[in-house]
Amino acid sequence: MKNTFGNSVAVTLFGESHGEYIGAVIDGLAPGIAIDHGYIAHMLTQRRPVGKISTPRQEKDAYQIVSGVLNGKTTGTPITILIPNENVQSGDYTQMQTVARPSHADYTAQCKYHGFQDARGGGHFSGRITAALVAAGAICRAALAHKGIYIGTHVKKCAGVPDREFLDLASDIQALNEKLFAVLDDSAQTAMQDAILAAAAEGDSVGGVLETAVIGMPAGVGEPWFDTIESMLSHILFAIPAVKGVEFGAGFSIADMRGSKANDPLTMDQDRVVSTTNNSGGINGGITNGMPIVFRTAIKPTPTIFKPQNTIDFQALTRTVLEPKGRHDPAIVHRARVVQDAATAIVLSDVLAMRYGTDWLK
Amino acid sequence: MKNTFGNSVAVTLFGESHGEYIGAVIDGLAPGIAIDHGYIAHMLTQRRPVGKISTPRQEKDAYQIVSGVLNGKTTGTPITILIPNENVQSGDYTQMQTVARPSHADYTAQCKYHGFQDARGGGHFSGRITAALVAAGAICRAALAHKGIYIGTHVKKCAGVPDREFLDLASDIQALNEKLFAVLDDSAQTAMQDAILAAAAEGDSVGGVLETAVIGMPAGVGEPWFDTIESMLSHILFAIPAVKGVEFGAGFSIADMRGSKANDPLTMDQDRVVSTTNNSGGINGGITNGMPIVFRTAIKPTPTIFKPQNTIDFQALTRTVLEPKGRHDPAIVHRARVVQDAATAIVLSDVLAMRYGTDWLK
Amino acid sequence: MKNTFGNSVAVTLFGESHGEYIGAVIDGLAPGIAIDHGYIAHMLTQRRPVGKISTPRQEKDAYQIVSGVLNGKTTGTPITILIPNENVQSGDYTQMQTVARPSHADYTAQCKYHGFQDARGGGHFSGRITAALVAAGAICRAALAHKGIYIGTHVKKCAGVPDREFLDLASDIQALNEKLFAVLDDSAQTAMQDAILAAAAEGDSVGGVLETAVIGMPAGVGEPWFDTIESMLSHILFAIPAVKGVEFGAGFSIADMRGSKANDPLTMDQDRVVSTTNNSGGINGGITNGMPIVFRTAIKPTPTIFKPQNTIDFQALTRTVLEPKGRHDPAIVHRARVVQDAATAIVLSDVLAMRYGTDWLK
Amino acid sequence: MKNTFGNSVAVTLFGESHGEYIGAVIDGLAPGIAIDHGYIAHMLTQRRPVGKISTPRQEKDAYQIVSGVLNGKTTGTPITILIPNENVQSGDYTQMQTVARPSHADYTAQCKYHGFQDARGGGHFSGRITAALVAAGAICRAALAHKGIYIGTHVKKCAGVPDREFLDLASDIQALNEKLFAVLDDSAQTAMQDAILAAAAEGDSVGGVLETAVIGMPAGVGEPWFDTIESMLSHILFAIPAVKGVEFGAGFSIADMRGSKANDPLTMDQDRVVSTTNNSGGINGGITNGMPIVFRTAIKPTPTIFKPQNTIDFQALTRTVLEPKGRHDPAIVHRARVVQDAATAIVLSDVLAMRYGTDWLK
Repeated sequence: MKNTFGNSVAVTLFGESHGEYIGAVIDGLAPGIAIDHGYIAHMLTQRRPVGKISTPRQEKDAYQIVSGVLNGKTTGTPITILIPNENVQSGDYTQMQTVARPSHADYTAQCKYHGFQDARGGGHFSGRITAALVAAGAICRAALAHKGIYIGTHVKKCAGVPDREFLDLASDIQALNEKLFAVLDDSAQTAMQDAILAAAAEGDSVGGVLETAVIGMPAGVGEPWFDTIESMLSHILFAIPAVKGVEFGAGFSIADMRGSKANDPLTMDQDRVVSTTNNSGGINGGITNGMPIVFRTAIKPTPTIFKPQNTIDFQALTRTVLEPKGRHDPAIVHRARVVQDAATAIVLSDVLAMRYGTDWLK
Repeated sequence: MKNTFGNSVAVTLFGESHGEYIGAVIDGLAPGIAIDHGYIAHMLTQRRPVGKISTPRQEKDAYQIVSGVLNGKTTGTPITILIPNENVQSGDYTQMQTVARPSHADYTAQCKYHGFQDARGGGHFSGRITAALVAAGAICRAALAHKGIYIGTHVKKCAGVPDREFLDLASDIQALNEKLFAVLDDSAQTAMQDAILAAAAEGDSVGGVLETAVIGMPAGVGEPWFDTIESMLSHILFAIPAVKGVEFGAGFSIADMRGSKANDPLTMDQDRVVSTTNNSGGINGGITNGMPIVFRTAIKPTPTIFKPQNTIDFQALTRTVLEPKGRHDPAIVHRARVVQDAATAIVLSDVLAMRYGTDWLK
Repeated sequence: MKNTFGNSVAVTLFGESHGEYIGAVIDGLAPGIAIDHGYIAHMLTQRRPVGKISTPRQEKDAYQIVSGVLNGKTTGTPITILIPNENVQSGDYTQMQTVARPSHADYTAQCKYHGFQDARGGGHFSGRITAALVAAGAICRAALAHKGIYIGTHVKKCAGVPDREFLDLASDIQALNEKLFAVLDDSAQTAMQDAILAAAAEGDSVGGVLETAVIGMPAGVGEPWFDTIESMLSHILFAIPAVKGVEFGAGFSIADMRGSKANDPLTMDQDRVVSTTNNSGGINGGITNGMPIVFRTAIKPTPTIFKPQNTIDFQALTRTVLEPKGRHDPAIVHRARVVQDAATAIVLSDVLAMRYGTDWLK
Repeated sequence: MKNTFGNSVAVTLFGESHGEYIGAVIDGLAPGIAIDHGYIAHMLTQRRPVGKISTPRQEKDAYQIVSGVLNGKTTGTPITILIPNENVQSGDYTQMQTVARPSHADYTAQCKYHGFQDARGGGHFSGRITAALVAAGAICRAALAHKGIYIGTHVKKCAGVPDREFLDLASDIQALNEKLFAVLDDSAQTAMQDAILAAAAEGDSVGGVLETAVIGMPAGVGEPWFDTIESMLSHILFAIPAVKGVEFGAGFSIADMRGSKANDPLTMDQDRVVSTTNNSGGINGGITNGMPIVFRTAIKPTPTIFKPQNTIDFQALTRTVLEPKGRHDPAIVHRARVVQDAATAIVLSDVLAMRYGTDWLK
């Protein structure tokens, strides 16, 4: 299905970095969901570059919703979000760039699109496209919040600097969602930003780890084969540029545990079944168990750097050296977190609508 | 789509651990692919328990192919594989088990299926179902090999004992595929098995990490949004019971690298574009770049252990203690590797057929 | 998706006319639905050939359900139905038949499967496969009946002989479902069977029209684009061999009406919105309106006839004459009606589960 | 999947009659396809109302392509088409209209969207949305034409007035595609328009039958179950507002034929397999046979008429009479024909890409 994902609630993404609009169609959302423009704008702001640690490309992300909303509420039909590309320097791209930037999609795009791809600013592969995903996810996320389902993501690690662990999820999630730079421990922010600037000073870039927690999901949602909650989430998460790993609960560290340590003992919290640990990340057999859903993604360092790099010209099929130029984000991990929030909201809206019907989110 | 996955080549799984048959329908495979029963049996053998380190449940996995094959070749219509459940001790299950085994799907199944689930031996959640996935994947994998695409998985780590790294992929993959216990360094096998037995002696279980490499994939296959190669693979991998993490290329370790280290420099190997490192795991922008596809999964320790565990009765909603009994696999990581091979083969057959058409695999 | 259809409730079909088994996997049905074997057998009997007007191939259709059912109820996981092919005369087919039977799928199968197709008895194209669809549909249909949704199909016309119109739908549907030859007016049965025998006596075959009515569907189910109720039903109906037309409500006759005649005036029947005519066939804008869903299919005459026919040898690419031999159904319209019932039940189960969630049919 | 249809080439539709934009995303089209704006505009003109026989709402249909096209060629990524709604009289709709127009989707929309639907001008159910489908289909259709596949639709019947039969398909299709009012026999146009005006003069509306022929399709495309060519085409055709019937080849008239008449004898036309009749409509067993694909749709009369109609208020649940007002199309069959062309082009692009791969249409 390519640029469309989801079964009952589905999102379609379109656009290129230097095209006229990027956008998203979010289809299948229940009618009657209030559109909170302040909240959409807030999430878009969280995705935008901030200060010295980000690219100088600054856009307002002035989105329009051109279908599916009437009198401030969803109609139940497809919601289309358009975001104009305002700050485009397309003069730089009159000629097709044939020198592949290492670890970008330039060469793979050439193999797939045979030279017809829009290579300007990364084209359809650009992280810019995620702005539309964020706007679509904002609508879903607000609807989930009305059902008591809250999502929060923090920069668990950036440039090797760790944030603290999640403690009280409800208050941690609330705090994160008000921050532009999402760390639980504010001192981590300073250390991370210093490390980012240090890398930038050397013309280099850094990566990190994002951790998401979801509270309030009912138990019994998901499928054993093949649409497990992990499968559905990882499907969309791995489409976010720069994600190279996804893990749930204890994740890769569970590989070194024994079963007696890894297993989550169950107990009763009044009339609710809970587990005393959450190595499962809220999911057993692909289905939610009512505990928080917890997962992490590995975000690679921005592949654009200010250092010469060995590469090839894919037209001439010759070796060459890529000299640095253009815009530069020494880190995107702090910006990607709200993309992760949004992607999570879209998938959860979908699996809930599959489970409980198309009116459930109303 | 629940129990069906894939777009052009799709697999449907069915069956329960103690039902009459488990099975798979593999649909969309090109006509004219030779069925190598020796190879299917070989892969099923690799999934079967071996010696003291596995469950005493021993089955022949005598599969039948009841549709889609004529005169030893695929017809192009759905191939149905049936595997009878022969060694079923269903007498143990006349009463619905209402004590949830921690980190199993017992409680989540109850939340989803309201007591109607087949709980015998894990039912539809059982790892047993993967035998059908293996048989289906064996057909795809043999077809891929005829096109020069080879898949191999090793136990990169088990019970904390590491295997050596991949060196020469072609010969390593070939060697792995002949082994029952898939390690590259034979001394690692002894150490792993000792560690497994040590855990078993304490009534405990262990987990590990599986690493897969694929060579021969053409460049230019996959989609930027949302059906990236990582998305498609992770979707099916996370449906394999016990998988809690999936990472590509450098995976989570890329989070600590700088861009200058993480980026894969490109160069020419005669007329072929190659990279001198492979932190991208053969995929950029969701699309194959012609380098080997490399990924790892985190396999949790078998949740069934021989120790008392705190849990709940989900009918009575009371706390209780689960006393150990029944069959027991102190590790499944070595058995899961061929499931990972099979799942990989199915997904690659699908994305190749989407890219090049339904006759391509012929 | 080829051999799988449906979103929340999906059916996968497999098998060939002379293979070991044909079968179906029905996935996504709610847990706790009672399996009524008498009812499944009853529907399979309605599909079987009867007396002199049908093929001498007589099979017991002794199906097995090998997954997804426990203690007589659905578990919520895939239900697999196997029907063995018992009366196979495969000796007739040691050589690939390369003379294309006109208006059969022989030549198109060759173009698609390049000679690897199982051509014995029509292979995967055989109407025999519909037995599995009927068994799967029987389970859905019984579940729908428990929710007050009833489906009935009659032979509206066969060999030019008309049946009477639907009058009281509830009693007409009930009466039809007890009949082997589904006409509302019993005298029509005699006339139709005489006409069929007359054609058979000349080595010829006849077609007809099937009309289905569904009562009890709630209003508000379906989608404007693209999954209208008409779209979903026609998608599966056109997969039934021999169907060449599908029309809803007034169908093609609406083309000659004026709007003032075609429009269905609305009124209140106590607190229920109803229309005083039903030219819309229970669907407006792709969505159910609470009135009976009514549609008709055109069933072509069986293409196998006992007369010499001009055709080609698709291997030699030469003209030839097909001389009559083998089994022969002078009409299948009366047998196809229960296939239409079954297909309808599957689609309605799907759209209802999409609308109201996966537990709704329970 | 609701507002998205297709597997390899998929279209997503969005927008409402009185919203800001309607539009379409066409995803999966091969890279390098030339965009012929003159041709898109030409097809949009064919959909627009003409003269006295159509609604006074006149729009320029000034579309924009805002993604997926660079330097006049497709890039291979999603193509987004926006069409602004310019001539909106939304002042008429400050209050939710609760009187259901008979045979419109007003009441069913209420049942599905609970009062949150955009009811202005039919909202998302409006025939206006088909302008976006036409623009998307124009791109596909031009690409198909470059591969020698031509599509043409004529008004076979309108207000009871017949057009002549197709004779020479190649020249008939070419002629049709240049006409605004698509009849093969120009005298039929006069008679049809007179009949439309006669109905309009009485405040009434008329329907008709559209017939489409496709030449140049290769044999061997499509699936036996469930994605037959008939299934795929009917799925999208029944989503076109006003379509109440779809038939292929001889269609419903085949029900009255004997097999000896209905069967299409095969012969050789030099080295090509052809049939001497085409009652199958170019499809056997769901797969193209290389003959022209021929099908017809029944188009109901426009439900908006200038006569009082009995209906209900769905808020008050009371009976009432709908007095005529607003815009009025006494017939839409002549405008729907290009929608049918477009829908056909989209589906054929999809099934061809599934069969031959994503580069085939290039």
